[in-house]
Amino acid sequence: VVVIDDGLQVLDDDEVRRLLAGGVVGRVGFSIGALPAIVPVNYRLLGGAVVFRTGAGSKLTAALSGSVVAFEVDDYATSDRSGWSVLAVGEAHVVTDLALARAADASGLEPFADGARERLVRIEPTFLSGRRIVHGAPR
Amino acid sequence: VVVIDDGLQVLDDDEVRRLLAGGVVGRVGFSIGALPAIVPVNYRLLGGAVVFRTGAGSKLTAALSGSVVAFEVDDYATSDRSGWSVLAVGEAHVVTDLALARAADASGLEPFADGARERLVRIEPTFLSGRRIVHGAPR
Repeated sequence: VVVIDDGLQVLDDDEVRRLLAGGVVGRVGFSIGALPAIVPVNYRLLGGAVVFRTGAGSKLTAALSGSVVAFEVDDYATSDRSGWSVLAVGEAHVVTDLALARAADASGLEPFADGARERLVRIEPTFLSGRRIVHGAPR
Repeated sequence: VVVIDDGLQVLDDDEVRRLLAGGVVGRVGFSIGALPAIVPVNYRLLGGAVVFRTGAGSKLTAALSGSVVAFEVDDYATSDRSGWSVLAVGEAHVVTDLALARAADASGLEPFADGARERLVRIEPTFLSGRRIVHGAPR
């Protein structure tokens, strides 16, 4: 069954997880004070959770701890107006599980930017969804 | 004056506006019910506002009307771990200004996806910021 919603194909769970697992950079949506913010991070999908590194004293770490946040990954091409996006929503927590920390080390997860980012944050997706642009009628 | 914050150069206002004006696809961060969401849209910067098309009855349109939302644009390269991001935060409104609607038509702004997206939404940036990854010591 292919569900098309306003020119967007609703992706099934396997495809959503495959795209989420294959991404390099995603965007975290959260609140600082009462204002919304979006910050790009490079990440890995480890044990079903989105994991990335931040600074111990960063606004991001403080804002994320225990909060429900959004995490988005997408890709698109202007040449053929193609694209897809995946949205994961769930609680963010500073990682204290040493096995997960070792898995992150082993995965080669490193921030693109220099600077101290010695905290790992994980987002446990409670809601997962994804959409892909389809042009013309579906087969 | 070059401000470096944890490996990220804080961009000046001119650079932020130049990057925002040059983008094609950005991500809108908003709330549906009490849950955060991030959705990619293709957009134009018109008269200082971020403008994009949505469907009249879409959840996006309903959620955005009058809300304070985040809008993020970024670009990055895994090859040299370079990248930048720009964040605009401000109120979103359905466009009723015919001059702005005509400017959007003239700009060639069209959604990548098929389907009816006959509403224009504008985000008026109240807060604008941007950062760029810098490796090594700044000159």
